[in-house]
Amino acid sequence: MSKKVYKLSEIAELLDLSLDGDGEKRIASINNLKNAKSSELSFYYSKKFKKDLKNTKAGAIILSKEDDFDFSGSKLYTDQVHLVYAKCSQLFESEISVPYLKDELSKIHESAKVNSNSYIGPYSVIEKGVQIEEGVFINSGVHIGAGTIVKKNSKIHSNVSLYPDSVIGENCIIHSGTVIGSDGLGFAKNGKKWEKIVHSGKVIIGDNVEIGAGCTIDKASSGATEICNGVKLDNQIHLAHNCHIGENTIIGANTSIAGSVRIGNNCMIGGLCGIVDNIQITDEVTIYPMTFVTNNVKNKGAYSGGPILMQHKDWLKKSVTLRKK
Amino acid sequence: MSKKVYKLSEIAELLDLSLDGDGEKRIASINNLKNAKSSELSFYYSKKFKKDLKNTKAGAIILSKEDDFDFSGSKLYTDQVHLVYAKCSQLFESEISVPYLKDELSKIHESAKVNSNSYIGPYSVIEKGVQIEEGVFINSGVHIGAGTIVKKNSKIHSNVSLYPDSVIGENCIIHSGTVIGSDGLGFAKNGKKWEKIVHSGKVIIGDNVEIGAGCTIDKASSGATEICNGVKLDNQIHLAHNCHIGENTIIGANTSIAGSVRIGNNCMIGGLCGIVDNIQITDEVTIYPMTFVTNNVKNKGAYSGGPILMQHKDWLKKSVTLRKK
Amino acid sequence: MSKKVYKLSEIAELLDLSLDGDGEKRIASINNLKNAKSSELSFYYSKKFKKDLKNTKAGAIILSKEDDFDFSGSKLYTDQVHLVYAKCSQLFESEISVPYLKDELSKIHESAKVNSNSYIGPYSVIEKGVQIEEGVFINSGVHIGAGTIVKKNSKIHSNVSLYPDSVIGENCIIHSGTVIGSDGLGFAKNGKKWEKIVHSGKVIIGDNVEIGAGCTIDKASSGATEICNGVKLDNQIHLAHNCHIGENTIIGANTSIAGSVRIGNNCMIGGLCGIVDNIQITDEVTIYPMTFVTNNVKNKGAYSGGPILMQHKDWLKKSVTLRKK
Repeated sequence: MSKKVYKLSEIAELLDLSLDGDGEKRIASINNLKNAKSSELSFYYSKKFKKDLKNTKAGAIILSKEDDFDFSGSKLYTDQVHLVYAKCSQLFESEISVPYLKDELSKIHESAKVNSNSYIGPYSVIEKGVQIEEGVFINSGVHIGAGTIVKKNSKIHSNVSLYPDSVIGENCIIHSGTVIGSDGLGFAKNGKKWEKIVHSGKVIIGDNVEIGAGCTIDKASSGATEICNGVKLDNQIHLAHNCHIGENTIIGANTSIAGSVRIGNNCMIGGLCGIVDNIQITDEVTIYPMTFVTNNVKNKGAYSGGPILMQHKDWLKKSVTLRKK
Repeated sequence: MSKKVYKLSEIAELLDLSLDGDGEKRIASINNLKNAKSSELSFYYSKKFKKDLKNTKAGAIILSKEDDFDFSGSKLYTDQVHLVYAKCSQLFESEISVPYLKDELSKIHESAKVNSNSYIGPYSVIEKGVQIEEGVFINSGVHIGAGTIVKKNSKIHSNVSLYPDSVIGENCIIHSGTVIGSDGLGFAKNGKKWEKIVHSGKVIIGDNVEIGAGCTIDKASSGATEICNGVKLDNQIHLAHNCHIGENTIIGANTSIAGSVRIGNNCMIGGLCGIVDNIQITDEVTIYPMTFVTNNVKNKGAYSGGPILMQHKDWLKKSVTLRKK
Repeated sequence: MSKKVYKLSEIAELLDLSLDGDGEKRIASINNLKNAKSSELSFYYSKKFKKDLKNTKAGAIILSKEDDFDFSGSKLYTDQVHLVYAKCSQLFESEISVPYLKDELSKIHESAKVNSNSYIGPYSVIEKGVQIEEGVFINSGVHIGAGTIVKKNSKIHSNVSLYPDSVIGENCIIHSGTVIGSDGLGFAKNGKKWEKIVHSGKVIIGDNVEIGAGCTIDKASSGATEICNGVKLDNQIHLAHNCHIGENTIIGANTSIAGSVRIGNNCMIGGLCGIVDNIQITDEVTIYPMTFVTNNVKNKGAYSGGPILMQHKDWLKKSVTLRKK
């Protein structure tokens, strides 16, 4: 993984920042205020790090003019520090190490169309009729089911499973262990037994979507489970059959979303939430972690419901009281 | 994946329905009322879809006589629409595409007994003494630990891990990424450190069990963790050591069940529930999602406990009040 | 898997127990009081098993002098029955069956240093610059990213994914399907879209750590996500970027821990807990299952917060009342 080094003046130019300090200083990495060394660049974008400002050893800091302070190192100014932090982190991204060329150690069906400028890792399986576009990176042990499309520049990490007919958009990232297109929980009662409802739909994922490690996204009963452009999912999220997640919505780890839930655009859903089936949530809704959503959310705003932390002896009293009611 | 086409009269005969309409009409797929096209067959089995009845474009509908209504297409009658929907979905199930014959791309121990009418996918490993019965389908990247038995017609999807000595019944489906037979959380205090309790048991799974993607089922400390016939588990369920899940019980996604819990037959447990260790739940119990079960449930019926959704500003007030108490 | 058999007198000597009974009796397995046969050794370490004492068929029992009772079989005494149970279980541990020698069925980069006294399972991938120390066991389908170190005698089960630059200490166990070093949920707002913050840190795991199946541990944004010596994690735990878990802390299944959380030494955190970002929890804290931690925990002690189980009809009433407030 090659190290990149920039002069401060280059960073200022690339990210359109005004520089107050030594433009010749060389920067090879970024770090938070607390841990940054004098060779590193840091960022001040939230008051919760104010205490770290005084003692930071960073060689240079990116901050907004209104947060200006007395600092011996160099300063770069912007109104959007957090966004500039993201862009700056991308400047220093290591190149993916691709130690093995595409070789005999993967199994690619003769009918699959694999772009020659893509990478298929060892022990991965590309089934019948799959299309892999330019710039795609597929790590080891991945299963790509028949008829699936993986569009330009998407990255699929090791041990991911894609069921047949999935569609993965451009510039997506899917982390290890995630499963896309598994059967939803669909059964009809037959006396005391359960009769399986065969689901014939699929999963369609838009562009610029990132899906964390260990997620499970079920295919639709018919039609498609849809994850729209720009959605970001944390780890271990469960998305049941026929869900729809609107553009740029972000969801925290371990949240469990039941069948046919429709979440709007630009929502922020916390971790460990449960959303029951057929719920509709409008655009621009924030839901705090560990909330249980049992009603439609028709108005934008912030919602909660998580249980309250208390001393265990108090919880026991509350528990007894509630049960007596 | 080959498409199947049926005449309506054939469907009526196969599923024992009375037909009112054009028996010659050809049907190649099913869909819900809202999205069905005139070439498709649909179903009306719940009042929550009543609004979709008027505007449906379906070519034919299966419904009960008592829900009869004015409809220009064909109708098929039954008293058990949801069950008929399941059976009908099975009629249209695509055949599994098996692009590669069993070949050198899997590692099968010389002592394993693999029925010649079964399929072992590429890069799967079949350890010492394993038995794979007739009609079994094992996809790519699966690890089958020593001494495991997989009975007739069971399907194991890609990247599943089975630890040694597991027993999988007939006609089971295990979805991708699931782990069966891992060690339970068993430790004894040794001063401040933890001493591992070696678990020597296993997991036994009955017939007609379906286990979703990303589940983890621990083996027993001794004896067996048992999942009985007809159980259906959704995705990302955790089942700890020595649990027993009774026949035909169904459990929602992300539910976490601690050690030695015993759940009866014909229960319905919602998603994101937590059940503490050694709890006993009798037969025919319904537990709603996100419930925390800390007491035995001795009487059949419906139980809840999930937190209540509210505006975030109200939750903050409640939180302050509760803490002050 | 070879069976081990010990005389009772050998067990007494190995574990420093005083024996009252037949030292020549041969023991080939251990079991709980309820299920033990006359050829088996059992243990009495908790009053919740008192009811099983009278009817046990065990051939020998390990217990403390103060719990002594009238029993026809042999008895072995100790003050630390639970710890002796753990040590005894280790005496009977089966040897791992290693059916295949390290062979051509794994892909090892030429720059990796793999100790000759280690085992790499079929279809596993060892990337550039990896170091695998003596006595390491890596099962099938494992991906070890570039620059990773796996120290002495650690065991990694099938289908685990380690991202680049991870450090795994000595004597660790990592169960199947677990992912270590995935990207944390790090994004900055760019209008309505999200800009990725590239995380350049890693995961460092100490010695004697056990991580259950299906866990996800994200790498740090910079520096390291740290799991200290002796930590034990159950299945399906999520640990976000930059977390620190102190020595000998044990965490239950499905608990979700957000970014930059710091948990002290010797804590016990129950299953299905949610801990929001940047929380600090001091040493020797117990948190019961399904608790939502939104404040720092500065004093040792026991904390709760899980919802209370009730009849569903009562929950519906409570739900209406709370919403009206």
